[in-house]
Amino acid sequence: MKIVVDAMGGDHAPHAVVAGVIQAVKEFDVKIILVGVQKDVEAELARYAYPKERVEVVHAPEVIGMEEHATVAIRKKRASSISVGIDIIKEARADAFVSAGNTGAVVAASSFILGMLKGVERPAIGLVLPTLKRFSFLIDVGANTNPKPEHLCHSAQMAGVYAREVLGLENPTIGLLNIGEESTKGGDFVKETHKLMEERVPNFIGNVEANEVFTGRADCIICDGFVGNVLIKVSEGLMESAAALLRREIKKSFLAMAGAVAMKSRLQHIKKLADYTEYGGAPLLGVNGVVMISHGRSSPKAIKNAIRATVRELEHNILAAMASELSR
Amino acid sequence: MKIVVDAMGGDHAPHAVVAGVIQAVKEFDVKIILVGVQKDVEAELARYAYPKERVEVVHAPEVIGMEEHATVAIRKKRASSISVGIDIIKEARADAFVSAGNTGAVVAASSFILGMLKGVERPAIGLVLPTLKRFSFLIDVGANTNPKPEHLCHSAQMAGVYAREVLGLENPTIGLLNIGEESTKGGDFVKETHKLMEERVPNFIGNVEANEVFTGRADCIICDGFVGNVLIKVSEGLMESAAALLRREIKKSFLAMAGAVAMKSRLQHIKKLADYTEYGGAPLLGVNGVVMISHGRSSPKAIKNAIRATVRELEHNILAAMASELSR
Repeated sequence: MKIVVDAMGGDHAPHAVVAGVIQAVKEFDVKIILVGVQKDVEAELARYAYPKERVEVVHAPEVIGMEEHATVAIRKKRASSISVGIDIIKEARADAFVSAGNTGAVVAASSFILGMLKGVERPAIGLVLPTLKRFSFLIDVGANTNPKPEHLCHSAQMAGVYAREVLGLENPTIGLLNIGEESTKGGDFVKETHKLMEERVPNFIGNVEANEVFTGRADCIICDGFVGNVLIKVSEGLMESAAALLRREIKKSFLAMAGAVAMKSRLQHIKKLADYTEYGGAPLLGVNGVVMISHGRSSPKAIKNAIRATVRELEHNILAAMASELSR
Repeated sequence: MKIVVDAMGGDHAPHAVVAGVIQAVKEFDVKIILVGVQKDVEAELARYAYPKERVEVVHAPEVIGMEEHATVAIRKKRASSISVGIDIIKEARADAFVSAGNTGAVVAASSFILGMLKGVERPAIGLVLPTLKRFSFLIDVGANTNPKPEHLCHSAQMAGVYAREVLGLENPTIGLLNIGEESTKGGDFVKETHKLMEERVPNFIGNVEANEVFTGRADCIICDGFVGNVLIKVSEGLMESAAALLRREIKKSFLAMAGAVAMKSRLQHIKKLADYTEYGGAPLLGVNGVVMISHGRSSPKAIKNAIRATVRELEHNILAAMASELSR
């Protein structure tokens, strides 16, 4: 199993990426191709002892910045780590691509270079969220902000396969994110999507409201990329603000300070509720290849976890399973 | 100052509503008209000692359920507490209407009976959110799920007035909720809205991402009613799930249990971050009258706070201030 990792992707690249890769090759049975500015990547690698035969470097002279316009950057920088990396899996010289870089650029390059799975028109990014029960799979969290109802049906089908194969959930349920439970709720787009899903999507349990995302009422929750992106970002921001407020409050009271120390490990656990980097990356589904997007602020641990999640996808041959579901 | 309160609105009506009204008339200089099924409301009132001349009951024989289809219910139940209550302010027999009932029905009845403010096409529901800095005003959280870009511009103008007059913020800044900071981010709708706001909205600071909602980066955050509703519901749900998980974790460790007791009041404070009932109701803006929507699960305290927020709106003559801003 060979995975291409974008060495230049994320706010702390290449340092954090290389550190995560080193952890990954020590823990998992996997070979890594690091794509990026060769001398920078090799300088980082030189800091570690690791099984040399498991890590290869492929030079890509250009870097796409986190804030660059995605499609423009992909067109202009054909020698970027993202394009070069995806080319490698297109040519079947490796099995999957992992990047913490510019999400839009990864989506655009993957769609363009790899093409789409048969039966899918647009890509979507999924995300495994921790819930009170176990996990839920939220899709789309940002690839397609102008979807048609059919696109959400395709996402639902792919999500079902992902939840079954990769998350190991039996007969995963599918819910449509909406602002009320009844099928008459929401705007035109979501009402039309609801109707289509009732006809086409197995295990569709209807609408799920946003306050039930973290209770685990549905195994898979389907939404458009704009709403999904807002949902995960507000969750992240809320947990961070709550933590900041907690620290501020705790400092006001000695008793609270003592309490906080006693509870530290428990509080860390709660924080994970919205800290999805703990659970690996965000799979880009719908493209004809295995692509994993990691958080732009990715730590070495997040990179390692994204690689682990990718290994799991490859072990379960997720691409073939999706192709089979979509052709039914 | 006289405020009509929907006695039958909310999951715990009329009990919680009447209890909240009793608290309000004791604390604020306000007269209340309770609209609802007379014998039920009077039975609740009989349980309290309160200044009798400050609370009046108006009979409305019909009740609109929390899950009823809004426009159908409003058409069929002309004698509901919502319609009768709004009629009272239409006839200028009172100054404002407060309801914790079916939100869609309150929006529909208000728009239909009161009409819109000049220059506004659609209503929008605002919400005062606590942030790390102080407060932000989020609009729309659920009235208009199929808005046009112009509607969001009107919401922005009204939000600016609300933040200045009611929240006391000087030169409040206006941000557009989007999935990136650059003006090129998001789908067609939000891009067009961004362009229009740049031309029309004073103090527009551009896009604000969802992870900055609770940091207080913008005083007013503008979004469509679907996205805003998802945003507040996921925030509520996340805080509840975090609290549930915290309780579960705490029980696993004696030390953590002791810590939790020591920190209890501090943790309560954090919970308020997403517990917007603490900060009063959600004003329905754009209609030609002062209407306040309270959370469907409203406690007596939330009802009291919604009345307090309404008093503040009336003291600052919010309707005239908005009409003046919109006619500029």
